[in-house]
Amino acid sequence: MTCSKEPSKALLTDLYQLTMNAAYFDNQKADEVATFEMFIRSLPQDWGYFVAAGIDEAIDYICQLQFNDEDVSYLQELNLFKPEYLDYLKHFKFEGDITAIREGTPFTVKTPIIRVTAKRPQAQFVETILLNIVNFQTMIASKASRIVNAAGNAKVIDFGLRRAQGRDAGIKGARATYIAGVIATSNVEAARIYRIPPSGTMAHSFVMGFKNEIDAFRAYANTFPDNAVFVIDTYDTLEGARKAAKVTQEMERDGHRLVGVRLDSGDMENLSEQVRSILDDEGLGYVKIVLSSDLNEYKIDKYTKDNTPVDYYGVGTEMITAKPVSALSGVYKLVEDNLGPRIKLSENKRTYPGRKQVYRVEDKDGGYLYDVLELEGEYHEGSPLLEQVVRGGKKIRETVPLNEVRDYCLDCVARLPIEVKMVRVIKHYQLKIGTELLKLTEELTAQYSGHGA
Amino acid sequence: MTCSKEPSKALLTDLYQLTMNAAYFDNQKADEVATFEMFIRSLPQDWGYFVAAGIDEAIDYICQLQFNDEDVSYLQELNLFKPEYLDYLKHFKFEGDITAIREGTPFTVKTPIIRVTAKRPQAQFVETILLNIVNFQTMIASKASRIVNAAGNAKVIDFGLRRAQGRDAGIKGARATYIAGVIATSNVEAARIYRIPPSGTMAHSFVMGFKNEIDAFRAYANTFPDNAVFVIDTYDTLEGARKAAKVTQEMERDGHRLVGVRLDSGDMENLSEQVRSILDDEGLGYVKIVLSSDLNEYKIDKYTKDNTPVDYYGVGTEMITAKPVSALSGVYKLVEDNLGPRIKLSENKRTYPGRKQVYRVEDKDGGYLYDVLELEGEYHEGSPLLEQVVRGGKKIRETVPLNEVRDYCLDCVARLPIEVKMVRVIKHYQLKIGTELLKLTEELTAQYSGHGA
Repeated sequence: MTCSKEPSKALLTDLYQLTMNAAYFDNQKADEVATFEMFIRSLPQDWGYFVAAGIDEAIDYICQLQFNDEDVSYLQELNLFKPEYLDYLKHFKFEGDITAIREGTPFTVKTPIIRVTAKRPQAQFVETILLNIVNFQTMIASKASRIVNAAGNAKVIDFGLRRAQGRDAGIKGARATYIAGVIATSNVEAARIYRIPPSGTMAHSFVMGFKNEIDAFRAYANTFPDNAVFVIDTYDTLEGARKAAKVTQEMERDGHRLVGVRLDSGDMENLSEQVRSILDDEGLGYVKIVLSSDLNEYKIDKYTKDNTPVDYYGVGTEMITAKPVSALSGVYKLVEDNLGPRIKLSENKRTYPGRKQVYRVEDKDGGYLYDVLELEGEYHEGSPLLEQVVRGGKKIRETVPLNEVRDYCLDCVARLPIEVKMVRVIKHYQLKIGTELLKLTEELTAQYSGHGA
Repeated sequence: MTCSKEPSKALLTDLYQLTMNAAYFDNQKADEVATFEMFIRSLPQDWGYFVAAGIDEAIDYICQLQFNDEDVSYLQELNLFKPEYLDYLKHFKFEGDITAIREGTPFTVKTPIIRVTAKRPQAQFVETILLNIVNFQTMIASKASRIVNAAGNAKVIDFGLRRAQGRDAGIKGARATYIAGVIATSNVEAARIYRIPPSGTMAHSFVMGFKNEIDAFRAYANTFPDNAVFVIDTYDTLEGARKAAKVTQEMERDGHRLVGVRLDSGDMENLSEQVRSILDDEGLGYVKIVLSSDLNEYKIDKYTKDNTPVDYYGVGTEMITAKPVSALSGVYKLVEDNLGPRIKLSENKRTYPGRKQVYRVEDKDGGYLYDVLELEGEYHEGSPLLEQVVRGGKKIRETVPLNEVRDYCLDCVARLPIEVKMVRVIKHYQLKIGTELLKLTEELTAQYSGHGA
């Protein structure tokens, strides 16, 4: 990668990471080893679990961190840093260890999903980029998992690019939804990069571009005789359905079939029923119904429960932005350093100290019962979720192909208790706290609360 | 730009833009001229206006659109398109005209902010990328403007990168907040690219990295004797304030001053008062108070009204994601083509037909009274907001430097009626519909409703 327009790998961070590291460097703390863990503080309302995404991208990013000459000369311009520190940054790279859960794994609040052990400035520095990547992608995968659950046997397609929070959000978001079980994306670039099936229908402007609606349908069928979905609500949905049926019969004469019709406005439940009848009455039971327009898991859940005849949901805004959630409360906290296990006591922001492992406990059929958080090295029943991915700055685990991540995710979500998968959950997937961790937490709380550090 | 890893400029689109264009190409409609307008359907709850952002980036993108060989070979792999169309795409570029409002301009619902006139496939194709860029950046600039208004004399800093919806959202979002009057960003890459002042304090992990809180403050002051802000709530906020005061007095002996202290948890209003007293009692009236932790315009407005002693607000999640808004309802609609002015009648999604201009009407002191939407060429009092930016695919207006965009925005927002700038607005900034446009809309509605197209 020698392109000079390549964005900086190192400056996409908060300024305080650079200033804190300068103070560590200056105060002989740059060689101390520290451990941080990333976890999410709380589940959004109605959610029962998260689906991990973005982990591998974040780790790849961390392993490639470096300050190029342009970066350092920009920092120099700020007149904030000493020359010795700027020299140090020129050789700065990540040389530590990273332990993480697999992408696609469902998990709950306070579960450490990534643990970083490295020299203090390295472990500190990666916070911002880790949170930026993992918070967003995990949010979108989790939201998409809710939508896929709600859709039942119907399939979900990502239509989010135009409402995504920027280019990156559209592309990475499409990938995250695919992990969670979405079957296709309208985003051609995401489809190309990640080999996700691309999908699309037509816009109202296409229909409006012809003198009559039926001319638009005929023209599209002419170009895509085996891949056409007509949008039928530009003027009147039921009239549109009748015209679509007519064109489909014309297509049949040439040995072709219409794939589907899309409804994008009005009383969707009612209209879907009527459109299904119009199509079925013409012997067009194979023509699929695609719904779109401000869908979310609540609406979709209702359609599913009411047996509304829908084959595909094209979901845009609310999946690609996780509306109304906007952001997860993912944080990255110091848990251990040269002074031993560390705890943060700020009001409502307390942390569990020490290097930890998470054990997943299953029932005899492989269903997930709960997880247990315990200090590393303390045995517990169940399977450990955190695996070492990076040793001494080098990745030791191959990145899993996206289709395998997706299969793994769908298998895991199938094993979750049903109560944590409802659209309005009864309970969160549970994380129990191990005995040894509880003991240490109490000890440290007493110790630090006593004299205010 | 010859870097092979350069992302595609053309595939970041919805698949249907490519399929619709293939159908236009195939059905002899590729040389017809069409006009589309982008507008936003509705204002989010409590908002009174939008601030335009991302316009120039979107236009630059459109003017550089092209399908490279990799793009075309990917499309070929899909087995969806005919070879003649793929050849056509190799030479596809934007050769039309674009008219737009200036970045930083406040506007309201249904105001066309960008108008594109080009051959139908070109005008259609740019929809997705235009919406992706302008929807997001306009949302963030608008949200930031609300926060800046609420902060009164206090200053607002962007702390959003870790909670932004991806990298792009963090960088472009920081720029959008700056346009709206935010004074600095923690995001170093955004600061570098756009020459925004970078800003930062310290994390709790820094304080926890030392045996005692006061050691952490001393170490930081040692490295940044003139640029330090201490985070004081790691253990106990008031104790933290006393230690900060003590270290500041030590700094004074060497001729230095602490810049500020940051509070990030607890009852902020109460704690700010007490911390201000502790500092003032020690003669440290110059030490600023920075608040952070899940701030938004409602909380900030309350602090302002209660005269809470705050100098800076570090705002993260809710500004960089516009929480709870998530996405604006920006759309891009066909308004005219070879068949004349066009209208869309879908339920609740009706559009105004024809090529339009927006006139801003001011009072005698330069205050904005309202805007008027009228067919282009029909005279109306006030100043037209839409200016031609692109002619025949070439930009004819220079991109305005960011600081000028910001100054212009702040001047415009100052001229808006006070009622549209409250945290919970009494009324939206008003767009009146001109007589000629109203007449045409009624005519076309009657015409298309009559026979269902």
